[in-house]
Amino acid sequence: MTRLNETHDAARRSLVASANEPGTDFPIQNLPFGMFSTATDPTPRPGVALGDQIVDLGRLQQSGAFSGKADAAARAAAQGPGLDELMALGNGAASELRAQLSALLSEESTKAPDVMKALVPMSEARMHLPSTVRNFTDFLTSSFHFTRLRPDGQLSRTFMGLPIAYHSRASSVRLSGDVVRPHAISERDGDLGFAPSTQLDYELEVGIWVGPGNALGDPIRIEDAADRIFGFCLLNDWSVRDAQWFESQPLGPFLAKSVSTTISPWIVTEEALRPYRTAAFRRAETDLKPLPHLLDPRDQAEGGLDVELTASLLTPAMRARGLTAEPLTRTNARHLYWTFAQMLTHHSSNGCNMLSGDLLGSGTVSGPTDGSRACLAEMNGKGTATISLSNGEERVWLEDGDEVILTGRATREGHASIGFGTAAGKVQPATRY
Amino acid sequence: MTRLNETHDAARRSLVASANEPGTDFPIQNLPFGMFSTATDPTPRPGVALGDQIVDLGRLQQSGAFSGKADAAARAAAQGPGLDELMALGNGAASELRAQLSALLSEESTKAPDVMKALVPMSEARMHLPSTVRNFTDFLTSSFHFTRLRPDGQLSRTFMGLPIAYHSRASSVRLSGDVVRPHAISERDGDLGFAPSTQLDYELEVGIWVGPGNALGDPIRIEDAADRIFGFCLLNDWSVRDAQWFESQPLGPFLAKSVSTTISPWIVTEEALRPYRTAAFRRAETDLKPLPHLLDPRDQAEGGLDVELTASLLTPAMRARGLTAEPLTRTNARHLYWTFAQMLTHHSSNGCNMLSGDLLGSGTVSGPTDGSRACLAEMNGKGTATISLSNGEERVWLEDGDEVILTGRATREGHASIGFGTAAGKVQPATRY
Repeated sequence: MTRLNETHDAARRSLVASANEPGTDFPIQNLPFGMFSTATDPTPRPGVALGDQIVDLGRLQQSGAFSGKADAAARAAAQGPGLDELMALGNGAASELRAQLSALLSEESTKAPDVMKALVPMSEARMHLPSTVRNFTDFLTSSFHFTRLRPDGQLSRTFMGLPIAYHSRASSVRLSGDVVRPHAISERDGDLGFAPSTQLDYELEVGIWVGPGNALGDPIRIEDAADRIFGFCLLNDWSVRDAQWFESQPLGPFLAKSVSTTISPWIVTEEALRPYRTAAFRRAETDLKPLPHLLDPRDQAEGGLDVELTASLLTPAMRARGLTAEPLTRTNARHLYWTFAQMLTHHSSNGCNMLSGDLLGSGTVSGPTDGSRACLAEMNGKGTATISLSNGEERVWLEDGDEVILTGRATREGHASIGFGTAAGKVQPATRY
Repeated sequence: MTRLNETHDAARRSLVASANEPGTDFPIQNLPFGMFSTATDPTPRPGVALGDQIVDLGRLQQSGAFSGKADAAARAAAQGPGLDELMALGNGAASELRAQLSALLSEESTKAPDVMKALVPMSEARMHLPSTVRNFTDFLTSSFHFTRLRPDGQLSRTFMGLPIAYHSRASSVRLSGDVVRPHAISERDGDLGFAPSTQLDYELEVGIWVGPGNALGDPIRIEDAADRIFGFCLLNDWSVRDAQWFESQPLGPFLAKSVSTTISPWIVTEEALRPYRTAAFRRAETDLKPLPHLLDPRDQAEGGLDVELTASLLTPAMRARGLTAEPLTRTNARHLYWTFAQMLTHHSSNGCNMLSGDLLGSGTVSGPTDGSRACLAEMNGKGTATISLSNGEERVWLEDGDEVILTGRATREGHASIGFGTAAGKVQPATRY
């Protein structure tokens, strides 16, 4: 695994005690970026997650803690709205900032008093979208998800030939919160109707944050693509299956996907995830080979990402009895058939311009086993079977009051274990139309 | 035709002589809004088209020409970026501004000197996108377009049941200019390849500009939808057919549509177009009826739009011989099966939030006659036939150097004739990948 540095050193400890606790998502080896505000200062501003604290990046910068490119990067982050300007600077700048942050926040910090003054408890913060999300594109890149939902159970030439994707809705991307059950047009018993959806589903995905963009007409090459990815988050691509089955021909899903998309608030950077890179997915010998413009040796060697992903369900009955959420999906981002670099390269291969802060979704991250099916439609055979929960409840689709909670964690021998925080959404009853 | 006022009076003449010339797109009855800059002041700012001049709205406002709500609307427009803030105020505010503009720019103007100081010749201006275009959605609402491209030639239940649409790419929406021929992945002779597209097409559409948006989870009702539309423009939804045929299953077109979308720079307002409203498209008796939430008596009575639309082709050979562009498509917006209000209502019916300045495309505005086919794929039978041009040239798809020029004009007995300006794009050769 190349390009590791002292920020990845598992032995490094933080001056913030909660960041040193086993099981924290945010040890000093993580240092993800996000936007937060507080009751006393409601202006969204950049922060870095550390244990159960947020480091107010602008405040630390104003104390004179940073120098050189790191200082410029911290100032760019504080420009707002969102972290767009930091993301536009590229991963070199983010890396300089990370290196100085890692030193400043370590037990050996030379500026501990400044750091302590810049801490805000997470419990007192409200999180905001980390970028302006000018564009949101969703892919379909798990072969397991694809084949389970195909009538013939086979990969198509299109699936093997390119990372399938569709433009999705940017305006309804949200952090954790409520999702109101939508009305949907669908066929019921041969009649067309418009009523509250009865087939609400989740899709467990990885979100990809675009760093420096490209000009219209100037594609991003596969060998450059990895460096154009600023970082990653969790993403729940809420899916309204009854709407989807009816509306999708010939132009694909539309209202099935724009109800809302829930993402986790922290951008876990490309650099933080380097220890957990792995080889690209190994295609079957009989599969089509990727076209040359989507093939790069480095990307094939380390374009995969070994991150465990979980989707858990908390029902009203579980909540009432004080039970914890039940994991429905345990999967791993390494199951994706296409790499993130291939997604970005394909997306821009027609000259389409990517903007800094654009969001891509990986597509449902299903794996080969039954336990790794990453949406209900795979578990219930498109609505034909019932899913049994361990508390005796059953589900086909999501019911009102159900909460879906996504988590993610990267672990590797000899390295710290880092997490993604959560993306949680709770289904609220449909409102009267 | 309801809700007309003195701004629609065909007898009203402007103090700007070129606005009184027959054939101008921009008589005083039009008054469309746009964003422009000049060499001496490169900051984009709001303007109003009048004959061959642009009225610098901010400059006129600063002279104290407006009062009350109109003054507030002019100030909102000047806030930038784009006209988003003006559009967010709603059509009532835009109407107040239009009423005062119409008086100020008329022959009877009481502030002619201030107006003259605020004029900028169009020939000296550079136009910019009229909004930030945070989201762009494209519909498919011509039954003639739909059936010509369907293998069975029939309307589907989905087409009759809802205005079919897909999220498209916001970042690549542009005004007139060059469009670089993209590379595309496609099947050629049974092999997958990545090469410059050989099937580049245009689609002649109407663009719809969203005024006041809605909160997530709060749908726009059909009876309110017309008032949420700020205005209209021309839109060329460039389509890469070889990419489209291969990539679209199961999630719809993606790179086929994100190469670029060319729009005209002026927003012809909902109010300016009132004299040219017409009844909604008359469905065949055997068609499905629209669901109740998409039906409104006023929308059925006047939700159609009687605007003549033309797509013309200027080839390098025509250009070399000094010929004018040849009209390939002559159609009319009244051929659309769904109304604009129905499109907006459907789009938000799942709670999806629309933002002020969002752009919708109507879909290819094809009509019943051969001359009203509004894309090459309809004229060439999906690439199986040749299109003969009157100068002896032939086309199947667009060739390098071809320019596609869209124009639009609304005309009705007893009313002024108003135009849309142009949306023109010229195909540039593919760059080396």
